[in-house]
Amino acid sequence: YKIAVLKGDGIGPEIVDEAVRVLETVGRKFNIEFDYSEGLIGGIAIDTVGSPFPAETQRICEQADAILFGAIGDPKFDNDPSAKVRPEQGLLAMRKTLGLYANIRPVAAYDSLLNLSPLKESITKGADFVVIRELTGGIYFGEPRGRSENGQTAFDTCVYTKEEITRVAKMAFEYAMTRRKKLTVVDKANVLATSRLWRETVQAMEKDYPQVVVDYMFVDNAAMKLILQPTYFDVVLTENMFGDILTDEASVITGSLGMLPSASKGSKVSLYEPIHGSFPQAKGKGIANPIATILSAAMMLEDLGETVAGKAIRVAVDKVVAEGFLTADLNSINPHSTTEVGRRIAE
Amino acid sequence: YKIAVLKGDGIGPEIVDEAVRVLETVGRKFNIEFDYSEGLIGGIAIDTVGSPFPAETQRICEQADAILFGAIGDPKFDNDPSAKVRPEQGLLAMRKTLGLYANIRPVAAYDSLLNLSPLKESITKGADFVVIRELTGGIYFGEPRGRSENGQTAFDTCVYTKEEITRVAKMAFEYAMTRRKKLTVVDKANVLATSRLWRETVQAMEKDYPQVVVDYMFVDNAAMKLILQPTYFDVVLTENMFGDILTDEASVITGSLGMLPSASKGSKVSLYEPIHGSFPQAKGKGIANPIATILSAAMMLEDLGETVAGKAIRVAVDKVVAEGFLTADLNSINPHSTTEVGRRIAE
Ligand SMILES: CC(C)[C@H](C(=O)O)[C@@H](O)C(=O)O
Ligand SMILES: CC(C)[C@H](C(=O)O)[C@@H](O)C(=O)O
Repeated sequence: YKIAVLKGDGIGPEIVDEAVRVLETVGRKFNIEFDYSEGLIGGIAIDTVGSPFPAETQRICEQADAILFGAIGDPKFDNDPSAKVRPEQGLLAMRKTLGLYANIRPVAAYDSLLNLSPLKESITKGADFVVIRELTGGIYFGEPRGRSENGQTAFDTCVYTKEEITRVAKMAFEYAMTRRKKLTVVDKANVLATSRLWRETVQAMEKDYPQVVVDYMFVDNAAMKLILQPTYFDVVLTENMFGDILTDEASVITGSLGMLPSASKGSKVSLYEPIHGSFPQAKGKGIANPIATILSAAMMLEDLGETVAGKAIRVAVDKVVAEGFLTADLNSINPHSTTEVGRRIAE
Repeated sequence: YKIAVLKGDGIGPEIVDEAVRVLETVGRKFNIEFDYSEGLIGGIAIDTVGSPFPAETQRICEQADAILFGAIGDPKFDNDPSAKVRPEQGLLAMRKTLGLYANIRPVAAYDSLLNLSPLKESITKGADFVVIRELTGGIYFGEPRGRSENGQTAFDTCVYTKEEITRVAKMAFEYAMTRRKKLTVVDKANVLATSRLWRETVQAMEKDYPQVVVDYMFVDNAAMKLILQPTYFDVVLTENMFGDILTDEASVITGSLGMLPSASKGSKVSLYEPIHGSFPQAKGKGIANPIATILSAAMMLEDLGETVAGKAIRVAVDKVVAEGFLTADLNSINPHSTTEVGRRIAE
């Protein structure tokens, strides 16, 4: 398989290296060959070639069977509102150009790590859901956006077409069919015109999936429900900005942010990445948890049809978690380094 | 004082009645006279006079010294995307017409109720912050909004002017000055033009409040931080939609949604309301917790300059909480009714 490898900023390179190590190991064991091509993205791409998603990186991605992604973002760009190019633009350009319209984030608790959650075990026990976030529409991309002539007014536009909603909703219904057959659509239909189109469009699709029970929840209510009763959810479908907020909120439920993988899918190539960010403070220190990236590689293998190899990675991760051979975020008493954890899983 | 009383839908009438009972009691005790005028709002106003915020209600509010508000919303309007008039439009019209540009939501834990939180006590203990949400701008009101000719595309517009940001930010800085002098501005400046105007505008105001430490946080990160470390926050300032989501999320921290009051302020009259909704399932059952509304009345008195009377209400509520004389949401073993709790606090 041709794998595009985009390490990005901060801890990106360190965690992706461990995922590649694990891929190499399962490759040898199950006789799968990977052909890696590295591409620049984010802050490092701005610093090196002046663009956060260079044409060369796009080419590498388009020719790949799958993309393995680390993280982007660097604080030096954040507090400078005048910065013309920001690392995040690379990520957004990539999603749009490659048509990655659905971000899939499974949230499931590891029983042995539940004690690390800020939530009580009575609340989190058994939580197991998937959030499907629309990723190439809404207020992230709508036009017009910018400033008025005199600079005193700023504006952004949220736009959705029925087609954009339908394709991601189809994916959500299909996920629900493989799970507990419950779909919760999160919107703000009591305020937003776009949300009313979402609700109308999904309602019209319900008849095609008679086995799936669908409910509609306002985003403010969902932000509460995720914490009050995370076990309520099976598949959650929502638009881009609400999804950004709710997926990050949901990620704290299990208390193991460093363990959660994600996939971004479209009609062509798919991308796999940890849900956490570039964690710039930890860069180069060897303390970053590589497991979310390693599990993202497992998702990638499964989607490529290599389910046995994907499963092997999951089993190895479960073992290492059970024995507590973990980085400091999950084992502060006897922590291991990024590389040690990667090696252990590979072994 | 002339008090506009807007009971609204669902449990609204029941909880407002108890707040009025308590106001009457402190009125007698501290020699304060209240002159109440009732106005229709929300679903009941649609059903009665065809408009969710009738002109007569507007007149009552404009002539009042303060507004006491229950809740609006009825499920019969929610799942009908074709409904032309919705209760929420009344709330939004009221905010806009009366210029209520800042929603103030204090979140503080009652030690004796901490065990009801979905979060661990080690996380919530000591949490005490205020969220200030911009309430009359952003994507709630921006134009254009609606559908394309062929109905296949929907759009909403988020707009902010420097002036709108400045006035609410001023309020936030001033709240911070009376508290721990820490202000966290929540935005999505890595994606939105409006957020960049927010960040730029607040950054320019920092020099006028040299004692206040300001930090800027992306909304997805804030959604995590609120749960991982709620004690981090002192004053949180954010735009309308992010505020809608984050205030509801924050309200679950203390585990006592039925205890949290709020104020909405502008340049003229202010409005006081519980943060919870109309809870239609509980309507007429006498099980709704009136304390959030009673504490909203206390906030109202304090803002009217009646700090002793306001304080008296808080002390009474604290006592009733300490003795556990509470509705079923907070005392499932030996619950008391809405009226019983209201009477007890009044006593
Ligand atoms: C970096 C940022 C633009 C991005 C987003 O908001 O989509 C990130 O938060 C994410 O969720 O992948
Ligand atoms: C009812 C709804 C329009 C409203 C809002 O979104 O502002 C409510 O959720 C609130 O927070 O007061």
